[in-house]
Amino acid sequence: MTTRIVELRRGILKKNDELAAGLRNRFNSAGVLVLNLVSSPGTGKTALLERTLRELRARGAQAAALVGDLETDNDARRLAASGAPVRQINTHGICHLDAEMITKHLEGWEGVSLAGLNYLFIENVGNLVCPSSYDLGERIRVVLLSVTEGEDKPLKYPGLFNSADAAVITKIDIAGPCGFDRELALRNINEIRPGIRIFETSAKTGAGINEWLTYLEEPGGG
Amino acid sequence: MTTRIVELRRGILKKNDELAAGLRNRFNSAGVLVLNLVSSPGTGKTALLERTLRELRARGAQAAALVGDLETDNDARRLAASGAPVRQINTHGICHLDAEMITKHLEGWEGVSLAGLNYLFIENVGNLVCPSSYDLGERIRVVLLSVTEGEDKPLKYPGLFNSADAAVITKIDIAGPCGFDRELALRNINEIRPGIRIFETSAKTGAGINEWLTYLEEPGGG
Repeated sequence: MTTRIVELRRGILKKNDELAAGLRNRFNSAGVLVLNLVSSPGTGKTALLERTLRELRARGAQAAALVGDLETDNDARRLAASGAPVRQINTHGICHLDAEMITKHLEGWEGVSLAGLNYLFIENVGNLVCPSSYDLGERIRVVLLSVTEGEDKPLKYPGLFNSADAAVITKIDIAGPCGFDRELALRNINEIRPGIRIFETSAKTGAGINEWLTYLEEPGGG
Repeated sequence: MTTRIVELRRGILKKNDELAAGLRNRFNSAGVLVLNLVSSPGTGKTALLERTLRELRARGAQAAALVGDLETDNDARRLAASGAPVRQINTHGICHLDAEMITKHLEGWEGVSLAGLNYLFIENVGNLVCPSSYDLGERIRVVLLSVTEGEDKPLKYPGLFNSADAAVITKIDIAGPCGFDRELALRNINEIRPGIRIFETSAKTGAGINEWLTYLEEPGGG
């Protein structure tokens, strides 16, 4: 990369950081816990979120979601079935969400005010690289890793795993057929991000979901 | 994105296209078939490549591989067990390979000359977005999709699927436990890239591998 690109990239990230700081203030003032869900495509962000929204609503909490994808509104339609307010962000080729997209999509969101929410989930574009550099003003960044992806992913994508506050292992119902090596995966996550909270879940069977929800409900929100 | 960024990006891609055109000429002159393997992290690029290198060598072909990752040389070490020459490209945070990285890593590759090869495989960084814009001088771009990822991925990442010449569905040995809807996946791939060659494989059981190898051996190389 030439100096010009490095400088331009630094400028973009600086502007994003400023916008994200503003968002974080707004979220804190409104008392809404904001989580940014990041993973590979197909790890099961939408499935986890679908279940989480449903269960949080059943417990009386107000939760909403912003969902990023290059194209389609498949995920927003899936999630809307939970009854929670959901808004799709189409990035049209951009490989990550940024703070400006979040700001824009909070505006004019019918029936949703930040002050009325307990939780706002942001489902990022499926990508283990680019989202790591873009702060969205979230309090908790959650990285998901499915049992189908290989235990070495934390070592191969250290930037994203290192920037996360919590890790969720997904699809543990098919750990057996996938030959998933649990000990190795836990060791690799801990090598990149020592002491990080790790949840082992299946959105399908419900395994581990209670621990995850309890974490979301902890005083101070995780 | 501001005009400045759009222009800069255009400049970067133009430079990449020029370098890639030069690489393509070199590959054609040397008579080596070059394939660029792209997919999400964890789709099984390395597993397919491992088996492909082994089987091609058993058939008397000369094959080598360049392997891209942000960090680690895990994949190069795995692939070296096939006996084929393998060289790791660490991108250190960059989310895709580009033509300049390929050019650099072809230089000084001990024991490897393009003229002595029948096949050169390039395993891209695991990412369903960014690699689509970067031509590496390959003749065939292969997109992989595993049965674990969800059948909607072609619709959600149309840029990459649309730029591919062949598609390989991987891990079909666990299609059952994953609840994989084969018809829907085939339909979605064909919607984005009508008429594309599709292979359904398991690197573990060997299912579909012969069809894939036959494709590689077709006159004109695929």
